[in-house]
Amino acid sequence: MQKLIECVPNFSEGRNKKVIDKIFSAAKKVKGVKVFELEFDKSHNRCLFTIVGSPENVLASVFESMRVATKLIDMNSHLGEHPRIGATDVIPFVPISGVSMKECVDLSKKLGKKVARELKIPVYLYEDSATRKDRVNLADVRKGEYEGLKREIKVNPDRKPDYGASSLHPTAGAVVIGARKYLVAYNVNLDTKDISIAKKIAGKIREKDGGLKAVKALGFNVGGYAQVSMNLVDFEKTNFDDTFREIEKWTKKFNVKIKSSEIYGMIPLEAVVRAIRYTFKANSFKSDQILEKKLFE
Amino acid sequence: MQKLIECVPNFSEGRNKKVIDKIFSAAKKVKGVKVFELEFDKSHNRCLFTIVGSPENVLASVFESMRVATKLIDMNSHLGEHPRIGATDVIPFVPISGVSMKECVDLSKKLGKKVARELKIPVYLYEDSATRKDRVNLADVRKGEYEGLKREIKVNPDRKPDYGASSLHPTAGAVVIGARKYLVAYNVNLDTKDISIAKKIAGKIREKDGGLKAVKALGFNVGGYAQVSMNLVDFEKTNFDDTFREIEKWTKKFNVKIKSSEIYGMIPLEAVVRAIRYTFKANSFKSDQILEKKLFE
Repeated sequence: MQKLIECVPNFSEGRNKKVIDKIFSAAKKVKGVKVFELEFDKSHNRCLFTIVGSPENVLASVFESMRVATKLIDMNSHLGEHPRIGATDVIPFVPISGVSMKECVDLSKKLGKKVARELKIPVYLYEDSATRKDRVNLADVRKGEYEGLKREIKVNPDRKPDYGASSLHPTAGAVVIGARKYLVAYNVNLDTKDISIAKKIAGKIREKDGGLKAVKALGFNVGGYAQVSMNLVDFEKTNFDDTFREIEKWTKKFNVKIKSSEIYGMIPLEAVVRAIRYTFKANSFKSDQILEKKLFE
Repeated sequence: MQKLIECVPNFSEGRNKKVIDKIFSAAKKVKGVKVFELEFDKSHNRCLFTIVGSPENVLASVFESMRVATKLIDMNSHLGEHPRIGATDVIPFVPISGVSMKECVDLSKKLGKKVARELKIPVYLYEDSATRKDRVNLADVRKGEYEGLKREIKVNPDRKPDYGASSLHPTAGAVVIGARKYLVAYNVNLDTKDISIAKKIAGKIREKDGGLKAVKALGFNVGGYAQVSMNLVDFEKTNFDDTFREIEKWTKKFNVKIKSSEIYGMIPLEAVVRAIRYTFKANSFKSDQILEKKLFE
């Protein structure tokens, strides 16, 4: 199986299109990766895009984009609504196929060391790469943002970076790097306008309240109808088809029906194959049986 | 969407591995295609493999393999159990994604003309490319096999080829070329040893007996258990998930259960995406949302 990971770097520039394009182009220049879905937002003053490829190629690609961002973004004049601590703000590595979480953690550390050494930017490890409990959540690492961290990093031992010096890069600040699982966004729409039913079902299925593992769920009003909106943070534990069946069970109790569902954004092939395997009791079905997959191996 | 077709050429050589390898290698030499799943059988004295890529590249690849087969196989000394009329016996073009059946028909005709002109082999068009009703089925076109056709092609106007002269190539015979839909092989295993139930369900679901469109089905004994074995000859009409649900309905009437199912061999991504779309009412789900698909576009 081909080794494949995803990386979604976030940069603190959402207004100057020339700068955004230079960062995006730098990532694209590395061979053997696909770089796509550039998004930027003026009020957040932030951009992000997706890199997919082998671990080594993705690392090279994201590093090139960081090198450009480090040169072109000055955090001392950066204003935006979104929390941030650096020119390159966050870099998550996500296993897609043939790569373990351990390998992604190792890769994040490899990039962290390289960034500290070559770009002189202090690095914090988060999520599965975190070295301390209070660095697992991104919000905790970004506490005080660029302006607050500038002072704190020098005096507070709890803010000492995992790699690099205990002082921010003069213009590029600091960066958060880590490995995390792929997040599947999945919504189930009900044929009722009674939003309270969506809220009740969300409460039944989310992990926090004793529901399905690795499921975050909320009930919303979308276009006048009730929607159960989910983030599946580990589709190997609970996949979209599992939540569909569970919600279907609850709709019967509330005497409503599922109108439709939507997989939002991108999804790894393995999640789709798993859903087929389980739903149709096709235990031997493998992604290698997908004809198109032959073409990218 | 990337244009993608499949081609599964069949050659009349299943014993001499050197010849088989030369034919296989010739197909592989063309850039931009994947060539895989070489199979050969001594008693059939026949080999086949799969080529996947853009229409033009697949045409170039299969033509190179035909050129070698024409040089190395002499039908006058060919013996084997499988019906055949030529060194290259059959060439089906199958649309996979972004390509219409019409384009595959046109491609088969383009190859047919090229083969008649450059290799001096008479060509019969079959399946969706057929120019006469009695050439739709492969068995009809191969009637009398190489030995019978050698005589008939010269005297019987009904055996006049679509392209090329009305006489066989002295060593390579004739070839059947055409376009057809992708065939999905799908089996559903029941938790009963009563094979008659599988046979009855097969009778209920196959098109021939008034069942589901584009479904061929038989009941078998596989490892002591009853199996409904299907060929889905047009998954856009009836997909594997449709047959699963239909069989599930019948199992309830016969008071048995579905034990497991199996997708046999390769399957186009679109068939899998369709199954997800329909089963989970995810009408907007598209194959473009599959992360890995980004890599082969």
